[in-house]
Amino acid sequence: MLQEEVFIRMVLDAWNVHVKRTDDVINSLSDEDLMKEIAPGRNRGIYLLGHLAAVHDKMLPVLGFGDQMNPKAYQVFVEQADKTIPELPSITDLRAYWNEVNARLATNFNNLTPKDWFQKHNSVSEEDFAREPHRNKLNLVVNRTNHLANHLGQLALLKSKKTG
Amino acid sequence: MLQEEVFIRMVLDAWNVHVKRTDDVINSLSDEDLMKEIAPGRNRGIYLLGHLAAVHDKMLPVLGFGDQMNPKAYQVFVEQADKTIPELPSITDLRAYWNEVNARLATNFNNLTPKDWFQKHNSVSEEDFAREPHRNKLNLVVNRTNHLANHLGQLALLKSKKTG
Repeated sequence: MLQEEVFIRMVLDAWNVHVKRTDDVINSLSDEDLMKEIAPGRNRGIYLLGHLAAVHDKMLPVLGFGDQMNPKAYQVFVEQADKTIPELPSITDLRAYWNEVNARLATNFNNLTPKDWFQKHNSVSEEDFAREPHRNKLNLVVNRTNHLANHLGQLALLKSKKTG
Repeated sequence: MLQEEVFIRMVLDAWNVHVKRTDDVINSLSDEDLMKEIAPGRNRGIYLLGHLAAVHDKMLPVLGFGDQMNPKAYQVFVEQADKTIPELPSITDLRAYWNEVNARLATNFNNLTPKDWFQKHNSVSEEDFAREPHRNKLNLVVNRTNHLANHLGQLALLKSKKTG
């Protein structure tokens, strides 16, 4: 295996593990659980679910995979705070959105060549990329995996506590 | 920059950013804040601080940087759950331990050559590494960065809420 293939594998394994773990947590939570705050006065599960789906959706244009599926979700769940919007999408729709965005990313990831992964993403200029070649497509996935892990640790607080 | 240097930069940048963000959160919290639970019935800040320091300490032998500084901390903060140990180290000692472990890792990271980073770490056998060359030292840092991000999202819940 070429070293660049090894590196891509490292990054995509970490991404896939965290998407899977988040799926498992979300699927273990009822719609009622997702309406709860992760801690008193903090974000609700529904907001974190929408936030993660919208941040992943935004990866589509940044990685050159086409338009965002739902730009309005970005306004609601990234640019605005929880509990400031009177009407949110339904949890059913958000669960479907989360799954569809991740499926679309997975399909596009599979179609990239190793060389593609080390090209610049669309949020960095040609000039900056020439100086900072680590700001490539793969690096966006590294950063978004950490973002996901950060909120996964919070979402996991909504699971029922072990008794005993 | 060689491609392998680009990879290493990507991974270490993400690590350094998350250690710095965690430092900032920990330094913003009083000892009293750290005695609180991150959410009702969940881990306390002191436990997460000890947990992160002990997991980072364990990276020293796994990456071939020498012995753990404090193997007992691993027993207390990784192998056992919060609130099961009658006596924990002081928060002052845990803050110092966290800083010292990360400083020791940073020194050792700086001494590795690019080639070293792609060698196997000490928790994988030669046989497994031959089949799975992505299980290298750099990959351990990828995984531990995600682990840190996961708990950082939880520790951040201890910060005082914004008013307004």
